[in-house]
Amino acid sequence: MSELFGGVLAAGAVRETVADAAWLQAMLDVEAALARACDAPADVAAEISGACRAERFDIAELGAAAAGAGNPVIPLVRALRSAVSLAAAEYVHKGATSQDILDSAAMLVAHRALGPLLDDLMGAAEAAARLAEAHRATPVAARTLLQQALPTTFGLVAAGWLTALDQAIDRLAEVRSHRLAAQLGGAAGTLSALAPSTVGRLAAELGLTEPILPWHTDRTRVADLAGALGTAAGVVGKAARDIVLYAQTEVGEVSEGRPGGSSAMPHKRNPVAAVSASACAAQAPGLVATLLGAMAQEHQRAAGGWHAEWRPLRTLLLSTGSAAYWLRECLTNLRVDPDRMRANLSLTGDAMMAERVAATLAPSLGVDAAHDKVRATLASGQYLADAFPEVDLSLDTGYAGSLVDTAIRHHSSRETL
Amino acid sequence: MSELFGGVLAAGAVRETVADAAWLQAMLDVEAALARACDAPADVAAEISGACRAERFDIAELGAAAAGAGNPVIPLVRALRSAVSLAAAEYVHKGATSQDILDSAAMLVAHRALGPLLDDLMGAAEAAARLAEAHRATPVAARTLLQQALPTTFGLVAAGWLTALDQAIDRLAEVRSHRLAAQLGGAAGTLSALAPSTVGRLAAELGLTEPILPWHTDRTRVADLAGALGTAAGVVGKAARDIVLYAQTEVGEVSEGRPGGSSAMPHKRNPVAAVSASACAAQAPGLVATLLGAMAQEHQRAAGGWHAEWRPLRTLLLSTGSAAYWLRECLTNLRVDPDRMRANLSLTGDAMMAERVAATLAPSLGVDAAHDKVRATLASGQYLADAFPEVDLSLDTGYAGSLVDTAIRHHSSRETL
Amino acid sequence: MSELFGGVLAAGAVRETVADAAWLQAMLDVEAALARACDAPADVAAEISGACRAERFDIAELGAAAAGAGNPVIPLVRALRSAVSLAAAEYVHKGATSQDILDSAAMLVAHRALGPLLDDLMGAAEAAARLAEAHRATPVAARTLLQQALPTTFGLVAAGWLTALDQAIDRLAEVRSHRLAAQLGGAAGTLSALAPSTVGRLAAELGLTEPILPWHTDRTRVADLAGALGTAAGVVGKAARDIVLYAQTEVGEVSEGRPGGSSAMPHKRNPVAAVSASACAAQAPGLVATLLGAMAQEHQRAAGGWHAEWRPLRTLLLSTGSAAYWLRECLTNLRVDPDRMRANLSLTGDAMMAERVAATLAPSLGVDAAHDKVRATLASGQYLADAFPEVDLSLDTGYAGSLVDTAIRHHSSRETL
Amino acid sequence: MSELFGGVLAAGAVRETVADAAWLQAMLDVEAALARACDAPADVAAEISGACRAERFDIAELGAAAAGAGNPVIPLVRALRSAVSLAAAEYVHKGATSQDILDSAAMLVAHRALGPLLDDLMGAAEAAARLAEAHRATPVAARTLLQQALPTTFGLVAAGWLTALDQAIDRLAEVRSHRLAAQLGGAAGTLSALAPSTVGRLAAELGLTEPILPWHTDRTRVADLAGALGTAAGVVGKAARDIVLYAQTEVGEVSEGRPGGSSAMPHKRNPVAAVSASACAAQAPGLVATLLGAMAQEHQRAAGGWHAEWRPLRTLLLSTGSAAYWLRECLTNLRVDPDRMRANLSLTGDAMMAERVAATLAPSLGVDAAHDKVRATLASGQYLADAFPEVDLSLDTGYAGSLVDTAIRHHSSRETL
Repeated sequence: MSELFGGVLAAGAVRETVADAAWLQAMLDVEAALARACDAPADVAAEISGACRAERFDIAELGAAAAGAGNPVIPLVRALRSAVSLAAAEYVHKGATSQDILDSAAMLVAHRALGPLLDDLMGAAEAAARLAEAHRATPVAARTLLQQALPTTFGLVAAGWLTALDQAIDRLAEVRSHRLAAQLGGAAGTLSALAPSTVGRLAAELGLTEPILPWHTDRTRVADLAGALGTAAGVVGKAARDIVLYAQTEVGEVSEGRPGGSSAMPHKRNPVAAVSASACAAQAPGLVATLLGAMAQEHQRAAGGWHAEWRPLRTLLLSTGSAAYWLRECLTNLRVDPDRMRANLSLTGDAMMAERVAATLAPSLGVDAAHDKVRATLASGQYLADAFPEVDLSLDTGYAGSLVDTAIRHHSSRETL
Repeated sequence: MSELFGGVLAAGAVRETVADAAWLQAMLDVEAALARACDAPADVAAEISGACRAERFDIAELGAAAAGAGNPVIPLVRALRSAVSLAAAEYVHKGATSQDILDSAAMLVAHRALGPLLDDLMGAAEAAARLAEAHRATPVAARTLLQQALPTTFGLVAAGWLTALDQAIDRLAEVRSHRLAAQLGGAAGTLSALAPSTVGRLAAELGLTEPILPWHTDRTRVADLAGALGTAAGVVGKAARDIVLYAQTEVGEVSEGRPGGSSAMPHKRNPVAAVSASACAAQAPGLVATLLGAMAQEHQRAAGGWHAEWRPLRTLLLSTGSAAYWLRECLTNLRVDPDRMRANLSLTGDAMMAERVAATLAPSLGVDAAHDKVRATLASGQYLADAFPEVDLSLDTGYAGSLVDTAIRHHSSRETL
Repeated sequence: MSELFGGVLAAGAVRETVADAAWLQAMLDVEAALARACDAPADVAAEISGACRAERFDIAELGAAAAGAGNPVIPLVRALRSAVSLAAAEYVHKGATSQDILDSAAMLVAHRALGPLLDDLMGAAEAAARLAEAHRATPVAARTLLQQALPTTFGLVAAGWLTALDQAIDRLAEVRSHRLAAQLGGAAGTLSALAPSTVGRLAAELGLTEPILPWHTDRTRVADLAGALGTAAGVVGKAARDIVLYAQTEVGEVSEGRPGGSSAMPHKRNPVAAVSASACAAQAPGLVATLLGAMAQEHQRAAGGWHAEWRPLRTLLLSTGSAAYWLRECLTNLRVDPDRMRANLSLTGDAMMAERVAATLAPSLGVDAAHDKVRATLASGQYLADAFPEVDLSLDTGYAGSLVDTAIRHHSSRETL
Repeated sequence: MSELFGGVLAAGAVRETVADAAWLQAMLDVEAALARACDAPADVAAEISGACRAERFDIAELGAAAAGAGNPVIPLVRALRSAVSLAAAEYVHKGATSQDILDSAAMLVAHRALGPLLDDLMGAAEAAARLAEAHRATPVAARTLLQQALPTTFGLVAAGWLTALDQAIDRLAEVRSHRLAAQLGGAAGTLSALAPSTVGRLAAELGLTEPILPWHTDRTRVADLAGALGTAAGVVGKAARDIVLYAQTEVGEVSEGRPGGSSAMPHKRNPVAAVSASACAAQAPGLVATLLGAMAQEHQRAAGGWHAEWRPLRTLLLSTGSAAYWLRECLTNLRVDPDRMRANLSLTGDAMMAERVAATLAPSLGVDAAHDKVRATLASGQYLADAFPEVDLSLDTGYAGSLVDTAIRHHSSRETL
């Protein structure tokens, strides 16, 4: 993680949950839970648990020693054994292999990171819900291929963000509850030096799911997590893209409550939160691909595929979490300009009513001829209202309002996570 | 799709389900269902439904006409209107927009493609289950970082493939049942020219889920599908990678029942099914990334992001389906050589019992000293059995057998899809 | 390749160059060239060359037979041998391995596909150059983070597209000339059944580069090609994105000469060419990643990594070529509206001169205070011209004009490809 | 960057060159160079240059302040202005925009990071060259699809790594010399507040290329760098994959000089350098895709696409550099076991001579019949030497030796970078 770019790319409470110290503490939490879950005497388990505090270890030193070993667990175990009595040392890491610790820790880190990440997604969803309700009937141009098409309401736009967020949240919550499992198999995944019941006890200690089998090279859990994060990032990216477009100087229908400045141009009011959300969300697809690409892990421990997960998993949690943070910031403080929305709707005269006119003419003229006639009228520069006075051309936003209600109702009726 | 490379890269029954004719029929099925779902008179709906048969339309012509329009629905609607009576023409595509048809068709294609795809995954899982049972107690070297580590059983290896397949299958089945929704919103997503109840009727006609809102630019459904397919491809890739490694000349623990030949070397018995499965599975991560990267779709219809989905979605269904086909082929016909497995276990003398010796010595020597002593013994070339006659060094596969039982039990107890 | 979506996603002359028939002909061209390059008697080489015509072979049959073999060369060689005299059959595919043929054919296909692809990129560049010259001094708002920032000229915008296109073209041309090499190594890459001089002769026959070594599992050439295509696609995507934004209803500074229609809205004038260019360009990053991810090819022939290249390589050529086609279409027919550009520049009063005012005040006030003062003035709603009458606020496009000249000069001075 | 995983994933001298401190210093170097390049009095330029030392600034504070601004340059400029006299403050960042500084700094960071990165790639190439020469004639099985195919020499294997490395190095060196350009355009890219000659002076000060135009949203330079790094990572990944396969317990043809241990198994000698190289190299494809996907940058400054580059560019430099470091480590200390290579060649009796026998029989029997006959002989379990005593079956490695010479000659004759 970078401090320098962190203000933009590592924002919100998720940041601390994926930091080195959090990973180290998670590894230590797993070692401690293992001591309590295996057959160690109670006082030994307590001694080991007491020693498992990240601040007692030197992260840089562990990291450097990992170079020789291929992972940081090997030096950590050595250090932890030195930190306890000889009697306790025997029970440290007992029956486990490095990957048991690191995989369980990764799941623990993910579980913890998903806390603030889901908070921010839910905060963004709440903000979207408020916008949807407040602007249930505020007309705004629907734009297809970035061309004004027909009227909709800004409430329905926000309801679309809301519904997408709800789906992403529900899936992430499901992954968090059911797919983040403890890992324990020993060197070969056969539990050769462990009692089988230890796995369930370890999972319970850690608040993680008990897996069916040791999953050292079955990475479906990591892949499911990655997919859910990728979807969530995409949802954030969509809403952020919309905001940036609505905030354009020439559109001006929304602005950020806390816009950013410029080093050169004092007049700029940049939609910095939406831009940052976009930038964070854009990290996800490539990271998901890296994690999926690392799934073909050889035999009982991969020769690189496992190690290849560490960075993208962390970065994916961080980026998606930061994207969620920025979107919440953005939506919570969003300023909406209904007058500008209405003014923009008039930019094309009444051309946006073209579908209505064509639909009205179709029964008598046939569909294609109706379309052709409307097109010719518009090409001539005439207003549709003048050419077709018999058609009702009042602004019509269809069922936008009731669709907003549906989205809000669905949002509210979901079970609390 | 390529015919020339299709033998390798487009294998199995999934192929036809994603072909042009299948897409066209799906679009027509949507138009027909829409006619039945909207307020068209019964005879009109019947007339339109009767006209909606792919073989009546010229795919190449529709495709060419799509160039001007930006999508193939526009020329298709025109052609369909010409194919019915004037009275029926008025009801063709009524109230819908191109994306309603194409998105619903894409979901329908996905639903249909997931049929054979899940069949092949389940066939592969069944084959893995049979291998797991048959070799529940067949010792084989567990290999970590491609180094022999400890004994496990080949049954547990196969159980690992099984459990991973089961998870991928469950998720894909869930996506198929709950996430593939009909699309209907009209030009602006407001249902401006439609009764809201039409959406539910359309979904029921098509056997798809009814969405909360029109989802023209909320692509979480596509993303969820992509993620589930990416995970499934990764699961296939892992098993295929293992097979290729087990089939190496120097390992020789499995071979394919129907190996491939070589244009130059008459003696080659290539694991072609596993190789093909790997190649197909390797397509997935990049395609998933493309689909996730296309999620930031502008406003009410994207200026490119939507069109960008068509090819990767089709290719992802096809590649993952082909990968599943090949893995099923491979596992169903796999020949296992328990003698060779046992012989390979002896390659390192009794070094694979090193963990056991170290664990036995640890209580008296301390863990690190025990490890050091074992390492020194091995380095001296001595057998562990000679150096440590007091330790039981019989081949120990831990709880491999009962882990196999657990995996089989879990597999069998899952609800039928 | 899909016919149905081909109108959008497989446009332009590149399409035929990557079709199945083109791949088959390329394989046959390699077999024919090999016959001429090896020690076959002249009449035998002529007989083989005469038989190497794609229309004589059944693509679907070869593709199906490839399933058993793992690649289509094995059945093709068998068919080719049957198509010639016994004396000639002995020389067919002599000393070669399947991958020699398929890799050389892939390079040949790439070489041929880059013809129309570069033509379209150069056509797009010419169109950009014309726009740059015509609008060398046409003021338009420079937009940063989609906010109006300062004036620039539309000529400089087009010059930016031009310069990017030139760089992409130069690199692709370099890859085409120097990196597309013939492949010939025989089964193990040792030329065990071939004279070493055959490689150079084969390369000369095919118009490809002679490689240093057989490169069966050294995929740097494929990767370089992929990278150059990815860059080119990105360049197209950038220009297309700009066009779509300029063409927005609310901006209206450009429009496409041949806009697309809508199935529902008769008034729509969609920037279909730019949208299609965007959609095609968006395929590239994932495909490049797949090709790069396939580089870790085992030993002397990969167990999947090689096969994994075929589809993404073809699709990448096709998508990038189609993107180039659409951008050329778009830029060649682009309509520019200088009046609207000037009108949009006035949307924010004279706020776009804020940088100038701040720069003028800075020497006396200090930079930060100057910025603060300008910001306060704008916040008060006052025009800068009124608040700071001493500053020259005429529209200033800096050195935009001379930058256009530089770009044109650079463009024109490049060597003809 | 993570300390904890850095031992594996952030190895070698490249690490410091992409650290926060290095980025900050690069930004300051750009500000200092700009002061010298613009019209500032010499003493002012000297004062500014003197103040531009990273250790005087608080990275965490700058990063936090970047949150409001959208990038770290804005707070840095403010801090730098405070650090110099009022007279000098006026010249700090004069005429520049944030992106000018950050883009130029990114190019500077890349230029510097490519130093150790290329050193390590060249070190790996030298090690490969030594292996190629030393084992020019050491027979080893060529393996296709991981099946023994024919004999080759280990020297030719290493020569293949060498040639691939040479190509990757040449391209990276070319990108470094010709594609890493200074950025200077001012807020709108029109040099509105700068003399045009400043660009060339800035580039000269920084040792970077002078661009044709300001390239704020023309990201071909970043894409070219990404592509070259992706190719280099792929080359490393291929060699590392081979090493891991050669080092398998059952193959045992090479081992690492400094193998890694295991937390559970005292006997393990893991090929940690090759595994780490693989894991680092596996990061590249997804990161390249992210950078390519970010190329569609809007107008004169992107709303997210630019910010989206920072992390993947840094990580790509770091990962590829670390991969190169590990491969150099691995190859420099590689232990080769020619006896085991020869022993493995005998594993299949003389089946590896099958191609030779078939080629000898072909003139009389026809190619297909010859293949069939050889296949039948092998299937019967008979040795080819017994069945075909007339064929010379001595071990034949073709032109492997002279191919090695070619590769070495090409390697040595390249210009010094």
